[in-house]
Amino acid sequence: MKFSTYLRGAEARLALVEGQHLIDLNDANPHVPSDMRQALKAGVDLAAAGRAALAGNPKRVPLASVALAPLVPEPGKIVCLGLNYFDHAKEGGRDKPEYPWFFFRAASSQLAHGEAAWLPQVSSKFDYEAELAVVIGSKVPRHTKEADALRYVFGYACYNDMSVRDYQKRTPQWTIGKNFDRTGGFGPTLVTADELPPGATGLRIQSRLNGQVMQDANTSDMIFSVAETIALLADVLTLEPGDVIVMGTPAGVGQARTPPVWMKAGDTIEIEIDRVGLLSNPIVAEPQ
Amino acid sequence: MKFSTYLRGAEARLALVEGQHLIDLNDANPHVPSDMRQALKAGVDLAAAGRAALAGNPKRVPLASVALAPLVPEPGKIVCLGLNYFDHAKEGGRDKPEYPWFFFRAASSQLAHGEAAWLPQVSSKFDYEAELAVVIGSKVPRHTKEADALRYVFGYACYNDMSVRDYQKRTPQWTIGKNFDRTGGFGPTLVTADELPPGATGLRIQSRLNGQVMQDANTSDMIFSVAETIALLADVLTLEPGDVIVMGTPAGVGQARTPPVWMKAGDTIEIEIDRVGLLSNPIVAEPQ
Repeated sequence: MKFSTYLRGAEARLALVEGQHLIDLNDANPHVPSDMRQALKAGVDLAAAGRAALAGNPKRVPLASVALAPLVPEPGKIVCLGLNYFDHAKEGGRDKPEYPWFFFRAASSQLAHGEAAWLPQVSSKFDYEAELAVVIGSKVPRHTKEADALRYVFGYACYNDMSVRDYQKRTPQWTIGKNFDRTGGFGPTLVTADELPPGATGLRIQSRLNGQVMQDANTSDMIFSVAETIALLADVLTLEPGDVIVMGTPAGVGQARTPPVWMKAGDTIEIEIDRVGLLSNPIVAEPQ
Repeated sequence: MKFSTYLRGAEARLALVEGQHLIDLNDANPHVPSDMRQALKAGVDLAAAGRAALAGNPKRVPLASVALAPLVPEPGKIVCLGLNYFDHAKEGGRDKPEYPWFFFRAASSQLAHGEAAWLPQVSSKFDYEAELAVVIGSKVPRHTKEADALRYVFGYACYNDMSVRDYQKRTPQWTIGKNFDRTGGFGPTLVTADELPPGATGLRIQSRLNGQVMQDANTSDMIFSVAETIALLADVLTLEPGDVIVMGTPAGVGQARTPPVWMKAGDTIEIEIDRVGLLSNPIVAEPQ
């Protein structure tokens, strides 16, 4: 089953995706909160809600007629992993990490599929990063073990962890270079975990800049799996419904190329993960 | 004027603080959202709402009779600065930074004044950090200059950026060691910016462990001022109402002592900033 978040006026609303159409779940059943995080937090069985909606001859809105919002517009947290593909660690001159390089994004950095990413006023070193995003479906008990971790995953989506490399490297803390407005592409759709291999392994993951393949890897190449990552996080903090984990990027980023490749206004960057989706964003100059 | 957030059942509610009493602003005027972030986001003039509430002979609840919540329970983001006092950078063997070492906390790491902080199951290297917290009152336009930055500050409070040092240093990214559950003490009250010197400079800031002074400095010793920090952030991202900036800690942390001093179950840690408040938390072992 697939879900998405679209805009009705200024409101971001949860929808079931059926082919090229959306079905608004809150319209179909007012007891389903209109926000994905709130629906998960309320413990709504969204698969059951989706099936019930389909059975009721619901209104279908053509996907092409609406603007999307970031898949989870306001997650409680967005936990990102650095250097989670060995070939990418290596291209950056780093060893294989013994523990994930965790950092956080804020919701204010996110953008939707189709929305323009902003080339910052203060930097031209704007890079792409194809990543698998994990959306947590229910609260993960502290100290959950790896073997039990995947039961808390609601589904998977594409993420583009666009990075402003000079700001990322101004200090050893990467956070600021990962949190420019309109740099965290998230969507277009979430595929529920039951439709994919456990931990979303074995899926081809690519980025393409203006149609040219820049990254081309497989999610099985991740150093820390989704289950191991959830277990490591559960030793530290509470993962809550709607929290997002962004699983790191493979080799081929722009900064590691000779000469470096930076995204510029007019470019289009695409992230595609087989069976998960295709996230596309045009690049524009940040408005003055 | 002072504000706080207290618990009514499971709900965290905004209150005006008058001496040793709280006045629930949403009870006094149902048009004022009951959550500080939502009230600021709605553009409510909380000082005016506070004055109106006082004029109406409102119900006064003794502070001592309620449990508090983290001052802003669910900020959109919590931006923290590392190494923002030169003496602390020096005690950690670091140079004076040219740019703030920004990292983020998540709301799930926060705790209230009076609430027990958790000594993690997985670490004994649990340290305190006395910090000044800034609460943003209204959206900061991108590329705001330092000279204009302070007009967007709603007020100031105490923060204890409790840190799990071995996790903080497992990789160069500090985030994970700063995000254990129940480690970000925030409160008890917010003092509005008009009641303090511009940028909350010139205030004595202390931490005390079981009554013994561990850190003793002045907010004027900060390398990056509140105004400069807001301006630097505005080059990158949108600061929104209810966002929190945690301004870094002075020298005297436990890890820099010989031998190191770690907080243990049964301890009490206090953060005090003159004219801002006193934040106190007992330390207990994380529940099994």
